[in-house]
Amino acid sequence: MSDAVIGVDVGGTGVRAVAVGADGSHAGKAQRVALKTRARAEVLGRVVDVVAQAAKEAPDGVRAVGVGLPAFLALPQGEVRLAPNLPELNGWAAAEELSRALGHPVIVENDANAAAYGEAWQGAGKGLDPMVFLGLGTGVGGGIVLGGEVLHGRAGMAGELGHLTVYPDGARCGCGAQGCLEAYASGTGVVRAFLEDTAGLPEAAFKDLYGDRTRLTARQVAELAAAGDAAAFRVFARAGTALGIAVGQLAHVFNPAGVVLGGRLAAGAWDLLWPTLWEEVSTRTPKALREGLSILPAKLGADAGAVGAAGLAWRHVGAA
Amino acid sequence: MSDAVIGVDVGGTGVRAVAVGADGSHAGKAQRVALKTRARAEVLGRVVDVVAQAAKEAPDGVRAVGVGLPAFLALPQGEVRLAPNLPELNGWAAAEELSRALGHPVIVENDANAAAYGEAWQGAGKGLDPMVFLGLGTGVGGGIVLGGEVLHGRAGMAGELGHLTVYPDGARCGCGAQGCLEAYASGTGVVRAFLEDTAGLPEAAFKDLYGDRTRLTARQVAELAAAGDAAAFRVFARAGTALGIAVGQLAHVFNPAGVVLGGRLAAGAWDLLWPTLWEEVSTRTPKALREGLSILPAKLGADAGAVGAAGLAWRHVGAA
Repeated sequence: MSDAVIGVDVGGTGVRAVAVGADGSHAGKAQRVALKTRARAEVLGRVVDVVAQAAKEAPDGVRAVGVGLPAFLALPQGEVRLAPNLPELNGWAAAEELSRALGHPVIVENDANAAAYGEAWQGAGKGLDPMVFLGLGTGVGGGIVLGGEVLHGRAGMAGELGHLTVYPDGARCGCGAQGCLEAYASGTGVVRAFLEDTAGLPEAAFKDLYGDRTRLTARQVAELAAAGDAAAFRVFARAGTALGIAVGQLAHVFNPAGVVLGGRLAAGAWDLLWPTLWEEVSTRTPKALREGLSILPAKLGADAGAVGAAGLAWRHVGAA
Repeated sequence: MSDAVIGVDVGGTGVRAVAVGADGSHAGKAQRVALKTRARAEVLGRVVDVVAQAAKEAPDGVRAVGVGLPAFLALPQGEVRLAPNLPELNGWAAAEELSRALGHPVIVENDANAAAYGEAWQGAGKGLDPMVFLGLGTGVGGGIVLGGEVLHGRAGMAGELGHLTVYPDGARCGCGAQGCLEAYASGTGVVRAFLEDTAGLPEAAFKDLYGDRTRLTARQVAELAAAGDAAAFRVFARAGTALGIAVGQLAHVFNPAGVVLGGRLAAGAWDLLWPTLWEEVSTRTPKALREGLSILPAKLGADAGAVGAAGLAWRHVGAA
């Protein structure tokens, strides 16, 4: 590619980066480096490292860098307001300090918003407007792209779709409220629901069937469900129901052309989630809202955030 | 005023119109004429009549007419897709035929969206962006104003906030789904809930206390609640809870600066709805989303739709 920007995605355990052309072209998967600590200097250092690696794919120069951060951000100034998984970043003047360290213009964006933009720009949401993105990982993130722009709201915190209430008297969410989508349709929610559903089993029987209770993962529960385990199947059916309720809500709010479901959980359990998800959407929305609504799996996988951050950087320099 | 546009609001039983200057100035309340039938020709005729009346307040001429219609509209062409309360309008090329009959440029908009725009432009939502409007009347309408624009979505049907699911297994809504906001926080929902809550009373006792069961209105239930009737009080407390759940959902979606509650039910029962509404919002949203969020009663009353339609007509002619 000729000119490029670098898109970066900072996670709780590592940093990814990829060089992206103005047309969205990029050479293969993002580079990844692990974070050794969660200190601010470590995050800054690893971003600098991985941007330098990715820049090798951009021999004609880097125009700008876009960085997705796992944080509520104060925009447009680009400061970290609250980073639950990287608390040492709280209060960080991220855009300014990253720009100084990298020697390039830097825009920052919430990681789920960046992933939403990535899917809308180059992934499953291409050409779909409005597009709503739900990222099902450890938690549930969200982002909304309207007319080619990320919806930010008053202070940059729009699109927190994991905390849509789906069951007002339901399971307790990590945020403290009851019945959030995230309490059902995240990795954490799936594991919790499976442990609750099997709480009647004696410890030894659980261990024989499923192994160590404290090390159970959502991926294991998905594999159990796919292999016919009734409890695991129920857990995913309920997660699909919760997702369907939320997608129905979002359909009434946005009349979207696309709802894109990303994140590891969606990629690994689409067939388990889909039947109940679609049943709820069908029951809860009129035909006029379902017409022309595509509900799709994400296409960019773990690179959605880095690609989206790159797309936002291109917008910033006025070329995409 | 010098130049004016006329804003029109078509309801199920009558048509309102008001002349509005580019700065939002208007002389008093909207004119109103009743609809004698629900035929298309009657609607068209009464719009022409009431626009002529309102035009008397615009001696320097009418630049355009904005018309709010109680219908799903196909936009931008301005056709009626579905008008549940005026079914003879289904399929009507409203913008085109109204423009021909009135001899002015005409823009049409869904009535709740027009009311939302009115409150954002000249009412309680002035200066608040994003602004979410909920109109609590016979049903619950909604509208969202983002960056000074009504959110339309793919086909003009965004903002159908009355059908946000608040209790997935809850009361049956007129739309066929269970647990929509409208099933709790509309006039219809309040009457239904009160009749359910008092279903244990013998017919004669009900009649002594509350009068004819078949003629009960939401206004009566509000008066009963304000006077200390326990069943009526519970009904409004539950309506407030449902509203609080929905406002919490919308706060996570939009990070709004304002949520404006309009419609007769909000105007007449604010103090009954507020305590449980605010309790749910406080429980279900983080402080960062509540900061800078104003939840306010609407200011324009029954004229919100006509004023908003006028504002949209001004935008259309490029002057507001």
